[in-house]
Amino acid sequence: MNSFGEKLRFSTFGESHGKALGCILDGVPAGLEIDEDFIQSELDRRKPGKSEFETARKEADKVEILSGVFEGLSTGTPIAMIIYNTNQKSKDYSNIKDMFRPGHADYTYFHKYGLRDYRGGGRSSARETAARVAAGAIAKLMLKKLSIKISSGISEVAGIAASSYDYNYAQSSLIYSLDKNVEAKQKQAILDAKNNHDSVGGIARVVVEGTPVGLGQPLYYKLDAILADAMMGINAVKAVEIGDGALSVKSLGSKNNDQIRSDGFESNHAGGILGGISNGEDIVMNIYFKPTPSIFQEQHTVDINNQEHDFSLKGRHDPCVAIRGTIVCESMAALVIADMLLLNMGSKMDAVTKYYS
Amino acid sequence: MNSFGEKLRFSTFGESHGKALGCILDGVPAGLEIDEDFIQSELDRRKPGKSEFETARKEADKVEILSGVFEGLSTGTPIAMIIYNTNQKSKDYSNIKDMFRPGHADYTYFHKYGLRDYRGGGRSSARETAARVAAGAIAKLMLKKLSIKISSGISEVAGIAASSYDYNYAQSSLIYSLDKNVEAKQKQAILDAKNNHDSVGGIARVVVEGTPVGLGQPLYYKLDAILADAMMGINAVKAVEIGDGALSVKSLGSKNNDQIRSDGFESNHAGGILGGISNGEDIVMNIYFKPTPSIFQEQHTVDINNQEHDFSLKGRHDPCVAIRGTIVCESMAALVIADMLLLNMGSKMDAVTKYYS
Amino acid sequence: MNSFGEKLRFSTFGESHGKALGCILDGVPAGLEIDEDFIQSELDRRKPGKSEFETARKEADKVEILSGVFEGLSTGTPIAMIIYNTNQKSKDYSNIKDMFRPGHADYTYFHKYGLRDYRGGGRSSARETAARVAAGAIAKLMLKKLSIKISSGISEVAGIAASSYDYNYAQSSLIYSLDKNVEAKQKQAILDAKNNHDSVGGIARVVVEGTPVGLGQPLYYKLDAILADAMMGINAVKAVEIGDGALSVKSLGSKNNDQIRSDGFESNHAGGILGGISNGEDIVMNIYFKPTPSIFQEQHTVDINNQEHDFSLKGRHDPCVAIRGTIVCESMAALVIADMLLLNMGSKMDAVTKYYS
Amino acid sequence: MNSFGEKLRFSTFGESHGKALGCILDGVPAGLEIDEDFIQSELDRRKPGKSEFETARKEADKVEILSGVFEGLSTGTPIAMIIYNTNQKSKDYSNIKDMFRPGHADYTYFHKYGLRDYRGGGRSSARETAARVAAGAIAKLMLKKLSIKISSGISEVAGIAASSYDYNYAQSSLIYSLDKNVEAKQKQAILDAKNNHDSVGGIARVVVEGTPVGLGQPLYYKLDAILADAMMGINAVKAVEIGDGALSVKSLGSKNNDQIRSDGFESNHAGGILGGISNGEDIVMNIYFKPTPSIFQEQHTVDINNQEHDFSLKGRHDPCVAIRGTIVCESMAALVIADMLLLNMGSKMDAVTKYYS
Repeated sequence: MNSFGEKLRFSTFGESHGKALGCILDGVPAGLEIDEDFIQSELDRRKPGKSEFETARKEADKVEILSGVFEGLSTGTPIAMIIYNTNQKSKDYSNIKDMFRPGHADYTYFHKYGLRDYRGGGRSSARETAARVAAGAIAKLMLKKLSIKISSGISEVAGIAASSYDYNYAQSSLIYSLDKNVEAKQKQAILDAKNNHDSVGGIARVVVEGTPVGLGQPLYYKLDAILADAMMGINAVKAVEIGDGALSVKSLGSKNNDQIRSDGFESNHAGGILGGISNGEDIVMNIYFKPTPSIFQEQHTVDINNQEHDFSLKGRHDPCVAIRGTIVCESMAALVIADMLLLNMGSKMDAVTKYYS
Repeated sequence: MNSFGEKLRFSTFGESHGKALGCILDGVPAGLEIDEDFIQSELDRRKPGKSEFETARKEADKVEILSGVFEGLSTGTPIAMIIYNTNQKSKDYSNIKDMFRPGHADYTYFHKYGLRDYRGGGRSSARETAARVAAGAIAKLMLKKLSIKISSGISEVAGIAASSYDYNYAQSSLIYSLDKNVEAKQKQAILDAKNNHDSVGGIARVVVEGTPVGLGQPLYYKLDAILADAMMGINAVKAVEIGDGALSVKSLGSKNNDQIRSDGFESNHAGGILGGISNGEDIVMNIYFKPTPSIFQEQHTVDINNQEHDFSLKGRHDPCVAIRGTIVCESMAALVIADMLLLNMGSKMDAVTKYYS
Repeated sequence: MNSFGEKLRFSTFGESHGKALGCILDGVPAGLEIDEDFIQSELDRRKPGKSEFETARKEADKVEILSGVFEGLSTGTPIAMIIYNTNQKSKDYSNIKDMFRPGHADYTYFHKYGLRDYRGGGRSSARETAARVAAGAIAKLMLKKLSIKISSGISEVAGIAASSYDYNYAQSSLIYSLDKNVEAKQKQAILDAKNNHDSVGGIARVVVEGTPVGLGQPLYYKLDAILADAMMGINAVKAVEIGDGALSVKSLGSKNNDQIRSDGFESNHAGGILGGISNGEDIVMNIYFKPTPSIFQEQHTVDINNQEHDFSLKGRHDPCVAIRGTIVCESMAALVIADMLLLNMGSKMDAVTKYYS
Repeated sequence: MNSFGEKLRFSTFGESHGKALGCILDGVPAGLEIDEDFIQSELDRRKPGKSEFETARKEADKVEILSGVFEGLSTGTPIAMIIYNTNQKSKDYSNIKDMFRPGHADYTYFHKYGLRDYRGGGRSSARETAARVAAGAIAKLMLKKLSIKISSGISEVAGIAASSYDYNYAQSSLIYSLDKNVEAKQKQAILDAKNNHDSVGGIARVVVEGTPVGLGQPLYYKLDAILADAMMGINAVKAVEIGDGALSVKSLGSKNNDQIRSDGFESNHAGGILGGISNGEDIVMNIYFKPTPSIFQEQHTVDINNQEHDFSLKGRHDPCVAIRGTIVCESMAALVIADMLLLNMGSKMDAVTKYYS
């Protein structure tokens, strides 16, 4: 239950304030060049403390490969990666060790398991997503070999929406904004929330280019369904759209259908997926992140004995989790696509016969 | 890849115009009373041809249990159910056997598999969802024993949105409308589209009441992630929301957090799920269905040799797939919740020890 | 838990005296010619009532394909197959409905599930293996395309062992005996046991020829481990050997190692598997079947209220389940090998890149 | 493919001469006291270099828990454990880096993956089993709470068989011998082989006491089938028996059936498993280990260019891998039983209802 994927499967471990976190990535084909600098650079994109728009917790997020790579190449055996925690301040949590933070998983973990690691949310902390980014980086190395590219950025913050999407620009933006025309307003909204001891939500937009036709295993491992699973499972995500998503319900069949000509589809309302299988067009997703539940305003809660408290959080938190969340979305997308690439290889008997001849 | 669920797992088979479709439901605890009339009544809610708002294809959708039930009780062994197709009109498809219908899976199935059953969409037809409803009915029988109730209805059609949700009313509405004040307009919009040889989209809303705290297996079998998987995997679904969903991105942490008092949560923006685990509040989902891709207007397409055609579909189709889709959403929700109930039973060592003492 | 395999996965349903039994075979590559006569011929090899060496229950075991095949070819979608029971005599079991037959699963099913279908052993009956043979037949069609051949026969019955293995001869023997020099004695031993209202055990030997190097997914889906799983899971099997098996423990490393020359291995003590991966040599297995637990002599038992009884079974039973069991072993071997062929296709990055270029 | 188990699942990583090896154990119920000293003591039983009967490679095999444990208790989240390699002598392998050692996985890994980590067998080394023992130790902590006990020992070495089984004695024997009357001969046989630069095989016997009735998930996750999978997957194992195993084929139904009285079974030929489900009697297994393939005599082989070589191995190796193998067998048995305990909890609807009431 801490694993994801079928043929390319990763399993993660670790808590926010534990010794270390990491993952085992299983199913990487042998012979892939493992560029450790690239993996680190992906972690650097997600790591906290890079600007005033993020939590002040500074983690080097230095990743170390423990297995599965020999002389620079994947060997086909599990690739284990570890990231040691270095900047825990567990005492920030001592005053709330028995209290349930609203909007957090404290309440549910405690009741499910009968106890919990209260330090920084323990396992439920978004810090765990560092392990996903490490695994996702290797998936991206696979995708690069097949000329598949994943891009992302923030399309909306605090209700301020992009009107165009510039994925290159987003990479240089401190908030990964897709539209430089609204970036300043988005930044200001984040800082305003932060100054009010509050937080804001945002939308990450992910696009996958270069996917071959045929990815997705119907009917219960469809590409869109598994992407939805992957994205909804990211901390703070409350909605996932493929292609036109929610807007498509206001359209008509005659407009929403992507008609086909000999040189391809005339539109891409479907977001690159038909019947749960990629159609070769860009795969487009919108992922909705709620406002960070960690806020510094006074809130109502109860403790593990159901006693009521009015309390204020301490600690260091992102005022808008969507920002760093975009990198996690990319990583999960890469892992899903890579998994689907491997799963698809046995779809046709001709291909099987050819493989073994 | 045609199976869903971990501890309660169903596998489906069958094509729209094949001999039969059905499923195997594995993992049903022994000793559950299997009310066959209830199962049939669930299929009747989904079956086509009940009104002018649905496809004219009439199928009895008579379900037969082949195994796993003895003297009225589940035995713990796989429950196989079969539904024979009786009203296929495969010749409706003879003129398009080599053409890809826009908005359908024809193009992707053909390219993925190198061939396809073109009759009525074959496996990709929403007809397969009858098998999900049969399996879901048994899941509902489990949930009833635990006083968990699942309701659903249509909250929006063609942009006409409900302003309140009456789940009881919805069951008596021919379009499962949640709001009788807008029902007439919604019906008219469907008929208008139908008369224009077009189709419309809609939103299904599902609520699960009575769920215990603790369902969901973090981090990669979270309750919300698997619900998203289940819902996005339903034919024509393009977006899934939990709780406030997309709207939550426009909120603030201070408003969006559900604060806690000794008698429970003060609000339910989260839709009953925190950290991927149920918190005991109602689980609320919105599921967005695109307009039916089967329309009778002329459209552009290509055939399997990439020759262009302008063509019009024949056959019998739902002008709004969201309507019957609500029953499928309910069924998938029931299957997910039942699976999670079983998975959760080993979460605490105390419970394990007690079970075996 | 009623499914087997990862990429090629079958799920079975049905009880000995229920309406029908069958399976869903998922993951068959599209475009495979599905020879229904061959599938039926495989079922005919396993079906009961063919000679005095088998149970007198006569079942046509007529298999019907319900889905997944179109115009003679697999479509990549699940292939469902059904076999209706026609010759149940459930009243044979009325006198023992509350009693646990020694050597059978009655006792364990009852205690695990709190109830059981007592008719003919219900789900635990070897009758379910007909579904495995149907699925295995399709796996064999896949293997034929790759020139992989599976053979089997009886090497020992009632302590009477073959001294040589003639797999062609076995197919014409009523007891699938591998050695015509001992066949008569083996037959006599079976009839002697039958006349004494007793039963005997036997050893099935299976060999797989033509397997490519590289099948098996270490470390926890090794070829030998999964073959052991598959074989031990067959009714009445109590031991499984690969290659020299138990004998290898009496050997020395210097003798047991299969040394290598440029034209191949100098011996095959390993039975074609090294480190859980096929090495291209013949895969050899011995599968040990205990004597049929259904005997007509008086035995001690208790009923569901733990009251003691001395009773004698009625009904129709195989005096030596190993005989028909050989066909089940072949089928399970075929399913494992086919699954491993599909799983192996993503082992090398070069192959992935080539596949998608 | 580097994971094992369904509800209690472990995933391992690491190579013989890599930085570290370890595992993630997922699904441990929350609230279990994690006795780290016990885990270490289990690793100490398996670790190499303890006597002249084992390899001279000395590894501390010091295990460190990285996650999933808080204040001494399991939290329900994944428990990661790591063991750093400290005593690699990779240069022992430099002369055979391109050669395939007979009896080893070198040949198959190279052909499957196109490359391999040649140092000490890389991933295929039995060194990986340290991770299984760490995971198995935690499974044993679970079993202890339920008064389930697992014992093991060596019943045969080099053809010298025990005539009685003393599991307590075995724990104090340097070769884990079950019979002190043959222990000296067994030891001498091992030393003789070692002095001849050869190796010998052996049989491990494992018994599980105190198992409740009902463990095992028929029909494709049967207790015996999964035990066979688990045992056959251990390095060098070539045969697995349950209960009387191979001997049962020479018996008669009338003798082999375990008849039942009100105070229990009259015998235990079945080895505690009927129909794939535990019957409450002791679970008994025999596991056959081939002679260590690493021997120092000259052998024939080829290199990766298929050039022939006559060569002799260097390095440090166990003359009889069965000895330390017994601990691995115990660990795998513990993991299987613990998994089955958790899986069984949803078998009866009554139990589900009671759990949630």
